Amino acid sequence: MPGELEDCSVYIRDVREASQTYSKGNFGYPMSGGFLELDLVEAAFLVQANRLEVFHKKKRMGFAELFDYASGKVDNFDIKYIVFKDLRERGFIVKPESGSFDLRVYPRGMSPSNSAPLYMVCAVSERAALDIGEFLNEVSQSEDRGKQLLYGVVDEEGDLTYYKMAMMDPEGKVLPAEGTAKAVGKLVGDRIFVFDKDQGQALHDEAFYGKDMQGVLQLSLIEGCYLIGKGELEVLNRKGKGMSDKDLVSFGRKTQDEFDLRLRTYVDLRNRGLVVKTGFKYGTHFRVYEKSPDDCHARYLVHAVPVSTVAMWPEISRTVRLSGGVKKEILFARVSNEIEYLEFKWFKP
Amino acid sequence: MPGELEDCSVYIRDVREASQTYSKGNFGYPMSGGFLELDLVEAAFLVQANRLEVFHKKKRMGFAELFDYASGKVDNFDIKYIVFKDLRERGFIVKPESGSFDLRVYPRGMSPSNSAPLYMVCAVSERAALDIGEFLNEVSQSEDRGKQLLYGVVDEEGDLTYYKMAMMDPEGKVLPAEGTAKAVGKLVGDRIFVFDKDQGQALHDEAFYGKDMQGVLQLSLIEGCYLIGKGELEVLNRKGKGMSDKDLVSFGRKTQDEFDLRLRTYVDLRNRGLVVKTGFKYGTHFRVYEKSPDDCHARYLVHAVPVSTVAMWPEISRTVRLSGGVKKEILFARVSNEIEYLEFKWFKP
Repeated sequence: MPGELEDCSVYIRDVREASQTYSKGNFGYPMSGGFLELDLVEAAFLVQANRLEVFHKKKRMGFAELFDYASGKVDNFDIKYIVFKDLRERGFIVKPESGSFDLRVYPRGMSPSNSAPLYMVCAVSERAALDIGEFLNEVSQSEDRGKQLLYGVVDEEGDLTYYKMAMMDPEGKVLPAEGTAKAVGKLVGDRIFVFDKDQGQALHDEAFYGKDMQGVLQLSLIEGCYLIGKGELEVLNRKGKGMSDKDLVSFGRKTQDEFDLRLRTYVDLRNRGLVVKTGFKYGTHFRVYEKSPDDCHARYLVHAVPVSTVAMWPEISRTVRLSGGVKKEILFARVSNEIEYLEFKWFKP
Repeated sequence: MPGELEDCSVYIRDVREASQTYSKGNFGYPMSGGFLELDLVEAAFLVQANRLEVFHKKKRMGFAELFDYASGKVDNFDIKYIVFKDLRERGFIVKPESGSFDLRVYPRGMSPSNSAPLYMVCAVSERAALDIGEFLNEVSQSEDRGKQLLYGVVDEEGDLTYYKMAMMDPEGKVLPAEGTAKAVGKLVGDRIFVFDKDQGQALHDEAFYGKDMQGVLQLSLIEGCYLIGKGELEVLNRKGKGMSDKDLVSFGRKTQDEFDLRLRTYVDLRNRGLVVKTGFKYGTHFRVYEKSPDDCHARYLVHAVPVSTVAMWPEISRTVRLSGGVKKEILFARVSNEIEYLEFKWFKP
């Protein structure tokens, strides 16, 4: 079956073949006169499958030549092609898109003529930077349109991993009480110790603050800042002088990376009734419980990221795979005026 | 039982109590006259366990006061105390050390009088930077002395995680052949395509280079550089002009972080007979096979780090936990004149 390459399209002008190509697999876009217009991605796929011969200025073009030509015309053609091919081979009808998304995918057995798309797909190289801001636009666009957003990430050997993303609204049952406890803590090294057993116990009982070390309660700097803010804790420095919340925050900033991001996320999660503990063992900022940590496992791992984060796929890949291994949901908390929670999940379409 | 605090030691001068404290738990260091000298860590532990009363200038000191005093005398006292206490409570005799290590630990049921130490332990806060260079010294010191090196890492809530480390010497069975294959590839985007089916097949058969996409072989930039160097590949740029290995390396550097580190590690691993593929899905640089990837799972995940790396514990924690979840061994390849492989393992003493 012959097609003619012109700029960014291949035209099938034999009416019977045009109709067959369209009906068998939903390739291309029917034109007036019964012709069919194919995208370069579609055309390359059909050439590689030996279902199409492409001619350019009367000369036949092999797959390699067409691939090379298309790579010069279309940004990121190789990546789009790899994702397109993979999804077609999984039995989906796939249509190239222009704009924020690269491909739209119809439910198995369905096509543009009888269904709305199921997935909107961005095809990216693992080396592409992911701007969380741009991504959020895409999520809300995609959710508004009732579709699911997938990223198809192609690694350096051409292997594909899909990620599904969604906005989340986590909530828990441990709402912080009005400042009932009142404790005195001492700043030692990079943590705060409450040496009075009863005071420590009261804090722990209120909403599972700190960690008990045989009658001595250890609080993290984040917990300390939060509790000073609530009027439930007084912190003394090495010399026994009281520290204001401002003093402690500025000490925290010197001691810990991304302290403000963490603190804002901690406060927001606490206000949502969640119990928040360090995620150190999981390599994330926090692990988060919906109820008492004595009665349940942490449901979420939360990692705070600034508005302007340009996260890299390898980082996301690592974090997501990690949370998969431990059966927890990973949320990225994007901290601006508000805090938005984004879920990234490994996905098999 | 009373003890007297002087500077950095607590002295038990009642001979009977001194002898009992030493024989029941191996605390302290016997002195002439039957007295016993205790470390601050040991003394604090005994005070918290209600086995010791400490007096300073005739005044009794509670646990909080002693802890506070010790924190002013000893760097990192709180961290050392937490690790010391945890190991004692696991049933080990633990002795404070000075120098590169913080604690030495004897086999369960054994003590300094009848055994050599089993573990040498560094007690660190999760926020401490780990200098890989310094660490390597410690590993070789510790291995020379026939002991195992543990890091006890205390997170911000006082939870402890132990890591065991060792030097490794990975080897595989797929030694690269003398340049038998000869292929032509085209650089497209950030990868190289070998469009000739037979040429691609030959490369793949030789030592599992690249990834087949239905007759088209995709090579990563790293593989491309390696194969040009071996004289088995010619790479053409977008304009069809041949690229030297220098051209391709400089393109790689522009496209990919830490390209030289990766390439040097790739070549070293290949020379060790290992099959090396991207570790993207695992969030590391490489996954590494001892035999054909068709016949076995990857045994190692390898992450290349520069000589001067000051790795942070959360990063290590994440990577190690990750590799535990997928049952692979994680190696850090430290690239200097030679490449040294370090294993980090989660450990329960």
